[in-house]
Amino acid sequence: MSSRCNLRFLIPGLALLLGGVPSVLAVWPQPQQIRNSAERYSLSARAFLFKHADVSAVRSGCDVLDQAFTRYFTLIFPESGGGAHNRYFWTEADPFTVEVNVAEGPCDGYPAEGSIENYKLTVSPGQAVLTSVTVWGALRGLESLSQLVEQDDYGAYYINKTEIEDFPRFQFRGLLLDTSRHYLPLQAILKTLDAMAYSKLNVFHWHIVDDPSFPYQSRKYPDLSKKGAYHPFTHIYTQTDVRRVIEHARLRGIRVLAEFDSPGHTQSWGNGQPSLLTPCYRGDVPSGTYGPVNPILDSTYVFMANLLKEVTSVFPDSYIHLGGDEVDFSCWKSNPDIKAFMKKMGFGSDFTKLESFYMQNIVNISTMLNRSSVVWQDVFDYHEINRPRYVVEVWKWGCYLCEVRRVTKAGLKVILASPWYLDLPGPTHDWARYYNVRPLAFKGTEEQKKLVIGGEVCMWGEYVDATNLSPRLWPRACAAAERLWSDEVQTSSVDQAFPRLTDFRCRLLRRGIQAEPLYVGHCKNEYQGI
Amino acid sequence: MSSRCNLRFLIPGLALLLGGVPSVLAVWPQPQQIRNSAERYSLSARAFLFKHADVSAVRSGCDVLDQAFTRYFTLIFPESGGGAHNRYFWTEADPFTVEVNVAEGPCDGYPAEGSIENYKLTVSPGQAVLTSVTVWGALRGLESLSQLVEQDDYGAYYINKTEIEDFPRFQFRGLLLDTSRHYLPLQAILKTLDAMAYSKLNVFHWHIVDDPSFPYQSRKYPDLSKKGAYHPFTHIYTQTDVRRVIEHARLRGIRVLAEFDSPGHTQSWGNGQPSLLTPCYRGDVPSGTYGPVNPILDSTYVFMANLLKEVTSVFPDSYIHLGGDEVDFSCWKSNPDIKAFMKKMGFGSDFTKLESFYMQNIVNISTMLNRSSVVWQDVFDYHEINRPRYVVEVWKWGCYLCEVRRVTKAGLKVILASPWYLDLPGPTHDWARYYNVRPLAFKGTEEQKKLVIGGEVCMWGEYVDATNLSPRLWPRACAAAERLWSDEVQTSSVDQAFPRLTDFRCRLLRRGIQAEPLYVGHCKNEYQGI
Repeated sequence: MSSRCNLRFLIPGLALLLGGVPSVLAVWPQPQQIRNSAERYSLSARAFLFKHADVSAVRSGCDVLDQAFTRYFTLIFPESGGGAHNRYFWTEADPFTVEVNVAEGPCDGYPAEGSIENYKLTVSPGQAVLTSVTVWGALRGLESLSQLVEQDDYGAYYINKTEIEDFPRFQFRGLLLDTSRHYLPLQAILKTLDAMAYSKLNVFHWHIVDDPSFPYQSRKYPDLSKKGAYHPFTHIYTQTDVRRVIEHARLRGIRVLAEFDSPGHTQSWGNGQPSLLTPCYRGDVPSGTYGPVNPILDSTYVFMANLLKEVTSVFPDSYIHLGGDEVDFSCWKSNPDIKAFMKKMGFGSDFTKLESFYMQNIVNISTMLNRSSVVWQDVFDYHEINRPRYVVEVWKWGCYLCEVRRVTKAGLKVILASPWYLDLPGPTHDWARYYNVRPLAFKGTEEQKKLVIGGEVCMWGEYVDATNLSPRLWPRACAAAERLWSDEVQTSSVDQAFPRLTDFRCRLLRRGIQAEPLYVGHCKNEYQGI
Repeated sequence: MSSRCNLRFLIPGLALLLGGVPSVLAVWPQPQQIRNSAERYSLSARAFLFKHADVSAVRSGCDVLDQAFTRYFTLIFPESGGGAHNRYFWTEADPFTVEVNVAEGPCDGYPAEGSIENYKLTVSPGQAVLTSVTVWGALRGLESLSQLVEQDDYGAYYINKTEIEDFPRFQFRGLLLDTSRHYLPLQAILKTLDAMAYSKLNVFHWHIVDDPSFPYQSRKYPDLSKKGAYHPFTHIYTQTDVRRVIEHARLRGIRVLAEFDSPGHTQSWGNGQPSLLTPCYRGDVPSGTYGPVNPILDSTYVFMANLLKEVTSVFPDSYIHLGGDEVDFSCWKSNPDIKAFMKKMGFGSDFTKLESFYMQNIVNISTMLNRSSVVWQDVFDYHEINRPRYVVEVWKWGCYLCEVRRVTKAGLKVILASPWYLDLPGPTHDWARYYNVRPLAFKGTEEQKKLVIGGEVCMWGEYVDATNLSPRLWPRACAAAERLWSDEVQTSSVDQAFPRLTDFRCRLLRRGIQAEPLYVGHCKNEYQGI
């Protein structure tokens, strides 16, 4: 009564794996080059040590690596009960040593656009050597190392002789969370950052506010969350919360890209900033409802400049996401002052020009604040002449590669989101659909292709909150993560990816990530969080 | 970039509710008759008491009610930190008293087919009076009572003056879990039983074994789980586990209907019971693979009789589910002994007759064990003459009401599952589709309609384990629960149900059930289990 129905979803080749726990020596996402050997070395939590190479530019006292050592010790030896790896050291004479050699400082700081994530990892008798240019590359290497460690049937840890040379295909590998449609507790965001690091995703796009609620607690405009959040105390992100997210992300080599979407998607802003939104009219009188941000008032730009100034002081990343999508023009059309302004500016009845005017001003503010702007594709589509330098995020369905082509032809950078809307529920093996995306399969020059800086998984919040976030994200987002990190030719087969992803999903469970199953089977360590 | 896409899923009328926490005085599923008044009474955990009416046939010492009082005290006052309600009593002079009056014993025992779940509940100043025929009806009334209690913005508890007269529309309101395709930890099953009780579902259909694994640890045939479970220790249900499930269910008025599906869906049985399955042939030689249970050997029936004898000694319910679905005839067709048997029996080449022959024997065993058999509709479809008295579970898609009509025309009882396959992921508001089912909307006599004893939510395990079970089940299963309990005319509007279900979902969260959101919004108490 069950399987026949569901079998129509089956991926070819999958039935072979029924019921088995695949034992594949693999790293997810697939490294650019990996050579495994059957030679294996026993590992023990009592004789395992991370250390800085003598020649390393980064030494003890560097938070990012020190904390990573502690974290990965526990991830590698989950039964050790904590990260105090040094405690174990002196009980044995010859520890297995992971020597980390980072070529360039600074040791701390923030991951950024252009951060080099390359690393080399060599596992040989008694030691592993991890070499990277930056600490961020070292983090990626530690993740790969942790995934190479397996447990045999008797619980004994081991690692195979391995050589990895690895680097990301795309520099921007994002994941969007929407904390406006549903509030996500801090813990849910931090856990998502953990899982992102396991998949080598490196940008947390925080769609922090939107129509339904404004949970960001602004220093300058505290009324925005006081009056615009679902609840002014329990459903907000304080400055401390935000700092904690940014620090948790930084320690994992993840950038935090904040989005303050306007002029649409701003209903909740109006509660705490009354003159900001456009009053809509019914005939000659205000209807009492409000539309997008009012683009014709000086006060609007003063407010936006102040808000964005604060935002850029809080979020260190060089990118800021300004939104600009899905502006409904009907309210602007109804408002006599807007109509007069349109006339004065010579916009005729083309409201896309008014939106472009608004976005141009906001992008200018962002530029003055020394930030690169990211906008949704609508802004590019409307804004045909004298476009400023912004990064365009392509999100619409249909021929998204056509849009990628147009944007890169205009010389602008692209982030691709369209094929990775994971909030839409579907059979788990939608992962194959996310996996089969070919971001560069459009006609264009080499220069154009270089402008595709990466892609992004979107987890919109209409139907998602802390109750279903994790199983809806994981392991489906891992499919996108491999597409964005790995070589496309080496990872073109869904059938070959399936046992690796099944295995990786069990690893996620072991690490406490509530990742749903891909198909019939089991993990040695099932999810315990019920 | 988000909502426009997703808005195509919107249910009409829903947008109005954006962002609000509806405050609806309501019980889910909707009682047959309920009268609320604006008059409200404050409640305090320090002055609240359950007691047995002097005339009640059931008094202190009855486990089912004693434990329910403790449980519902905590559900009503979640901040009280435990169920020791009597501890609070003597601090106040005039407690609010819930007087429970059960007309008939026994006080304990098992809920069964035909158990009367009717109850009346009257909430007036200083007291509530709950009257029922059986303890099972009292449980339903306590659930409704607990849902009438609300908290105001200052955290103060209150209940409105209310009168309820209630009974279920269908006696069989089931939920199926599949513990073979993925193993579900005991805790996941117990939690599901909790949530079932909150929705007044009353039959846990335990699809305990199937092709991929055999987690039931048999006393008589321990090899079945030893060799057929995913793991012989960590992925099994011991006799103690099974007793715990049955007891947890009993205390909530929930029957446990065990399914041992055969002759198909039995691959995992073959590991521990080697001669049970049919050897498949390639040409003249055995291929090394096995098909369904071998229906031509006496040893098969001896084994099945022994197994079912054990099963009926473990599971007290008068129903047993014998499966009988989706038998693949190709292996039988390949086997020369089976072919010879077909000839001897005069079955020609109609293998449905062979399946009917097998099922007839199994149903007979079940009858001798004093059990009513439930079978999947395939058995009915194949078995056109001299059908034994079994209950038919309709599961196939397409015109499922046509099948309901045929089965009831043959004078057999029906359980309807087809429209409630909740394992198939989909947008959360699939709940509306589950809600809009009309189980009796077929042409038939009154007698026929009475044969539709109820329906069942199915949560098959191909893509579901403990990581995503709860959010996939809840609150979608609540839609089916209301359809099966409530009056269809009173609950015909999805728009009216929406705010009630949204509210009920928040209540489920408060009770620790990981129920996913229906749409944009928030709950006062969000899910804390991250």
